[in-house]
Amino acid sequence: MKIDMSYGSGGKQTGNLINEVFLKHFNNKTLNKLEDAAVLNITGKIAYTTDSFVVTPLFFKGGNIGKLAVCGTVNDLSMMGAAPRFLTAGFIIEEGAELEIIEQIAASMAQAAKEAGVRIVAGDTKVVEGNGGIYINTSGIGEIQKEGISISNCRPKDAIILSGNLGEHHAAILSHRMGIENQIASDCAPLYSIVKNLFDENIRVHCMRDVTRGGLATVLNEAADQSSCKVEIWEEALPVSAPVRGFCDILGLDPLYMANEGKMIAVVPENQAQKALQAVQKSIYGKNARIIGTVMEGRGVTMKTRLQGSRTIDVLYGEGLPRIC
Amino acid sequence: MKIDMSYGSGGKQTGNLINEVFLKHFNNKTLNKLEDAAVLNITGKIAYTTDSFVVTPLFFKGGNIGKLAVCGTVNDLSMMGAAPRFLTAGFIIEEGAELEIIEQIAASMAQAAKEAGVRIVAGDTKVVEGNGGIYINTSGIGEIQKEGISISNCRPKDAIILSGNLGEHHAAILSHRMGIENQIASDCAPLYSIVKNLFDENIRVHCMRDVTRGGLATVLNEAADQSSCKVEIWEEALPVSAPVRGFCDILGLDPLYMANEGKMIAVVPENQAQKALQAVQKSIYGKNARIIGTVMEGRGVTMKTRLQGSRTIDVLYGEGLPRIC
Repeated sequence: MKIDMSYGSGGKQTGNLINEVFLKHFNNKTLNKLEDAAVLNITGKIAYTTDSFVVTPLFFKGGNIGKLAVCGTVNDLSMMGAAPRFLTAGFIIEEGAELEIIEQIAASMAQAAKEAGVRIVAGDTKVVEGNGGIYINTSGIGEIQKEGISISNCRPKDAIILSGNLGEHHAAILSHRMGIENQIASDCAPLYSIVKNLFDENIRVHCMRDVTRGGLATVLNEAADQSSCKVEIWEEALPVSAPVRGFCDILGLDPLYMANEGKMIAVVPENQAQKALQAVQKSIYGKNARIIGTVMEGRGVTMKTRLQGSRTIDVLYGEGLPRIC
Repeated sequence: MKIDMSYGSGGKQTGNLINEVFLKHFNNKTLNKLEDAAVLNITGKIAYTTDSFVVTPLFFKGGNIGKLAVCGTVNDLSMMGAAPRFLTAGFIIEEGAELEIIEQIAASMAQAAKEAGVRIVAGDTKVVEGNGGIYINTSGIGEIQKEGISISNCRPKDAIILSGNLGEHHAAILSHRMGIENQIASDCAPLYSIVKNLFDENIRVHCMRDVTRGGLATVLNEAADQSSCKVEIWEEALPVSAPVRGFCDILGLDPLYMANEGKMIAVVPENQAQKALQAVQKSIYGKNARIIGTVMEGRGVTMKTRLQGSRTIDVLYGEGLPRIC
């Protein structure tokens, strides 16, 4: 069945969509009340964030827009040292979208939320003219477990840990769009298990960031810039899977600028680097983690190449490579 | 200057848009840090909600999509008895949108946030293909001031107060779209001042709802349904301005189903009705408030007509009238 404009009127069809799709899958006491807002208990410091998801195709190897919308926001909370607790979900649905597709997306969101330990406690649905596209905004609240973790908190000599292979989400989406058959799947995943492992091992984490839009290059430039430090990474240490490497070589793409949806960096004191690496690797989403570089006095980001040259790694300018979000 | 896809890449242009438009207007310490999430102090029970705004035209008499996006979400928080505190803003911008328009919208959001006493502490921007349209999602957190206010909490004999004239937002948007010149302006406004007045007067408010999409008829049906009561309203008590009445007569519209963006109902104990009405009227946004009906044993919503007949007021089915959101 296709969604038409009446599903956005706030009347009976809107009610049906909410009851038969969203409440069915997101089912929890708070949401089921259908009040104007969720009433929640929370204590102490919270992390609070939002992200919108506009990816096409809606479904891809390794996930879909719904899984992405949950993981993206819980990861942003996790990077601030917060345990994700609550999400809101705002759907903007173009006329012509299939109800079955929306239900599959909702089911994926519910599953991802369960894994990430969050409840979807408030939502909103709008229907707009268009061609069956779906946009999802999520916002999230987490409870801060450790304070002071910040993109501005990198210190000279800190080690930079990357939680796994670069470029998989970007390559999966591009492969799908270009009709290229391969085994590359999106890395879309909730990362709080990695953060929890670091905290459980008492790692004094200085900075964490998930490596999403703009890629590792952009994240490292932000860290260097905001921390007034220099970042040096080592090309030979960067983990990239053989299929992604091959895909990039053919298309002339640079994994440093490619988006990921289940990767993060953790910047930790030099003397805790090995212990931190092991903590990250204990999570199923950090198995292929590596120490990829170090923080220094200075400014900017450079990469030591395989041939022992040095290359400046600038922030992404313009589109740079085929965009996916 | 027009937005192109590069503004959504997460690279330099995205950074420029964030710095030169959003940070400039939303300017506050938390947001300016540009972390993955805002870190906030909050105590006790919170209200948490989300809403997306897709209105066209983007600018209309009485407001624009930005003012709407702030008022809509602070009103949802207010209706749960919460003082609005924090907002997030997620922009989905279609390629071709004018940067100047985005800046005007951001300025309106900043102004509305200031009036409503909230800070915009986190944001996100995505650029999608299209024709210059703009969608805004806001989520909000408020601190609960009084508990137990709920759409399921209406009790027989309760009085129903409506905070002012019906249909103005809907009529303003439709007038703009149809090219009809008149003086009708959207009622778009933040409603916490009304809620605060009720609390300051120790009114034991049972239920509050802002009267938005679907109109008063839909809100009253939800209240009757969730509270397992009957609602009776009185046609002659319903406030509708002469210009809106004229507009509705010409087009055959029913103000009961029209959207408002600055109106609410408060359901209060019978013996506090007059005191509550005066409290609502003390706010500039409640000057034309009226007691419009009563709660009874039974089910459904009926209206006593001017001719002393009785008419069943059903929930909006299908589109019903020209849709505006």
